[in-house]
Amino acid sequence: MDNPLKFAVLGGGSWATAIVKMLCNNQGKVGWYMRNSDAIGFIKIQRHNPNYLTSVTFDTSKLELTDDINEVVSRADILIFAIPSAFLYGELQKLTVPIKDKTIFSAIKGIVPETGLIVGEHFHQEYGIPFKNIGVITGPCHAEEVALERLSYLTIACEDTKKAKFVAKNLSSSYIKTKVTKDIIGAEYAAMLKNIYAIAAGIAHGLGYGDNFQSVLMSNAIREMKRFTKRIHNIDRNINNSAYLGDLLVTGYSTFSRNRMFGNMIGKGYTVKSAQMEMNMVAEGYYAAKSAYEIKSKFDKKVKTPIINAVYKVLYEGKNAKKVFSELTDKLD
Amino acid sequence: MDNPLKFAVLGGGSWATAIVKMLCNNQGKVGWYMRNSDAIGFIKIQRHNPNYLTSVTFDTSKLELTDDINEVVSRADILIFAIPSAFLYGELQKLTVPIKDKTIFSAIKGIVPETGLIVGEHFHQEYGIPFKNIGVITGPCHAEEVALERLSYLTIACEDTKKAKFVAKNLSSSYIKTKVTKDIIGAEYAAMLKNIYAIAAGIAHGLGYGDNFQSVLMSNAIREMKRFTKRIHNIDRNINNSAYLGDLLVTGYSTFSRNRMFGNMIGKGYTVKSAQMEMNMVAEGYYAAKSAYEIKSKFDKKVKTPIINAVYKVLYEGKNAKKVFSELTDKLD
Repeated sequence: MDNPLKFAVLGGGSWATAIVKMLCNNQGKVGWYMRNSDAIGFIKIQRHNPNYLTSVTFDTSKLELTDDINEVVSRADILIFAIPSAFLYGELQKLTVPIKDKTIFSAIKGIVPETGLIVGEHFHQEYGIPFKNIGVITGPCHAEEVALERLSYLTIACEDTKKAKFVAKNLSSSYIKTKVTKDIIGAEYAAMLKNIYAIAAGIAHGLGYGDNFQSVLMSNAIREMKRFTKRIHNIDRNINNSAYLGDLLVTGYSTFSRNRMFGNMIGKGYTVKSAQMEMNMVAEGYYAAKSAYEIKSKFDKKVKTPIINAVYKVLYEGKNAKKVFSELTDKLD
Repeated sequence: MDNPLKFAVLGGGSWATAIVKMLCNNQGKVGWYMRNSDAIGFIKIQRHNPNYLTSVTFDTSKLELTDDINEVVSRADILIFAIPSAFLYGELQKLTVPIKDKTIFSAIKGIVPETGLIVGEHFHQEYGIPFKNIGVITGPCHAEEVALERLSYLTIACEDTKKAKFVAKNLSSSYIKTKVTKDIIGAEYAAMLKNIYAIAAGIAHGLGYGDNFQSVLMSNAIREMKRFTKRIHNIDRNINNSAYLGDLLVTGYSTFSRNRMFGNMIGKGYTVKSAQMEMNMVAEGYYAAKSAYEIKSKFDKKVKTPIINAVYKVLYEGKNAKKVFSELTDKLD
C-alpha cells in the first residue's frame, strides 16, 4: 500500500461490503478496513466476504484490505464509515493519525451511544471536521439487494454539492441510481428515527396487530418524523422523498430488519435484556430511541412524538408493551 | 320487512360483509342486500357468508337480508354501497324506487366504468343527490382483519360533518377507530389511485424488482397522489394521513391485493387479457388507470404522473412492461 487512495470503506458488515462492491464498479482501487483479520485473509483467497453478502465476488486486485485503521485513514481522501454505530467510538479511539482534513461520509444509520450524537455531528464536534467535508449515504437500500444487483436508489447528502455529486457518481451503476441533497441533518435523523419506528412495527406485530394497523403506524410515523426533523433543522424538505419515506418503508416493512425483529421479540413477551441476548446484538434503534427521546425533550417538549415516547417507555422504563401500545393506539389516527 | 331501517349495506363481498359486522355492533337491525339469493338462504341458516369472511358469525335476528335492491333502498335511510365498481351501474339500473332523498355512503374504491366518475360524483350527477348527502368510507382496511377483530382505522368523509360523525359512531367498536373529514373528493380519488399504484407494484415485482425499488415506488406514488388530488380538488390536505398514505401502503404492500396480483401477472409476461381471464375478474385498478389517465389529460397535462402513465401504457397501449418500467425508473427518485 503506497499510492494514495480516493476512497476507503471502513467496516466489515453487509452494508460495507455492498458499498465496496459499488465503488469497485467505478474505481481502480478501493481501500477496505475491517478489524477481523481472518476475514481479510479469507477474502484475499476466496474473493468474497466469509460472513456477509457471500454471493458477491470481488476482483481482489482492486481491493486494498487492511486491519489497520490508521493505515487506511492515512491513505484515503474520502472515508466511508459503515461500522455499526455502537462500535464507532471504540474504533475511532484507535486513531493515532490525523483525520481532520479528511472527507467523511457516513453510511451508518444511528446515534453514537457515547456522545448521543448523529454520526456527522460526532465527527464535527469531536474531530473538528467542517460540515462541508461531512456527508451521508442513505437508502432506501437493503445491502442484500445490492448483492443481487437489484435496482436501488441512494441519496447522497453533503453541504458541498460538488462532493456529494462526486461520491454519487462513484457509487452509481446500472443498478444504483443516486440523488444528491444538502440535507445531511435531516437525512441522518430520518435514518436514525426509522429504526425506532421499525422497532415499533415489530412490537405491534409481536402483540398481534395486523397489516391495517401497520399502515396506520407508518402513516403516523412519517408525520412524526416530519415534525421531529423540522424542529431539529427547519429547512424546506419533502418528507415523502425516498431518503425519508422510502427509507422508513424499506425498514418498517422488512421482516429481516434487526430492529423490527428486536421489537417483535419484545411484543411477544421477551424482556429487553433477553431479546438482546437472544439476538446476540443490540439493534441500532435501541440507542436511537433513547437519544431521540432526550433530544426531543431538550429541544421542545411540545413536539408530539407518541411513537418514540411509546418505544422509549417500553425499552427504558420497563413499561408493559401491551399497555403502552394500547394507549398509543388512541394517539394515532 | 316493515319498519324503516337506519342502515343498509349493498353488496355481498368481503368488504360488505365486514361493514355489516361493524354495524351489527351498534344497530339492532341492519338491512343487507345482495343479488345472490342462494347466499342469503345460506346465511339465514348457517349464520355466515358462504363465500367471504366465512369466519364471521352473525346474529341473524339483526339482519334483514334481501335480494331485492328496491326493497332495501325504500326502507333504509343510509345506504352503504360496497358493490365492486364494475357492477354498480348495472345494479343501479334495477332501481324503480327513488333514491334522490337518501344518504349514500360509498365503500367502493374505484371508478364507475360506464361514466368514468368516482362513485360520489356518479350519484351526484346521475341521481341528483346533493354532496351533503354523499359520503365515503375509506381504509386502510383489509376486510379479512376486520373479521379477525384486529384493530383498524377508518376515515369517514362527508361534507356534512354531522352525518360523517353519525356513520363513524355506528361503525366504531373496540377494534374499529374512526376519523371524520370533509374531503370526499380527495378520499375517493386516493382510494382509486392507490389501486393503480398497487398494479404498478405488482408489475415491478413480476419483473424482478425488489424491496428497495418498491419503497422508492411508494415514495414516488404518494407524491404523485398529492399532485393529482391537489389538481382535482385543491384543499388543505395532509396526504400522509391514514386515508391517503395509509390506504396506499396497506394495498401496495399487500400480497393479497387483487390489483397487485394482476400487475404481478403482467410483469411475469401474461397479456392483459390472459391475466384477467386467469384471475376470472377485472381488478379495480384496471379501470382506474384509464380514468385517471383521461382525467389527468383533460385537467392538466403538466401534472406529472409518471406511474399512472406507465401503467396506462402497459394496460391500454399494449406496450412492453419491461421497457415501460425501465423508462419509468429514470423518472423516479
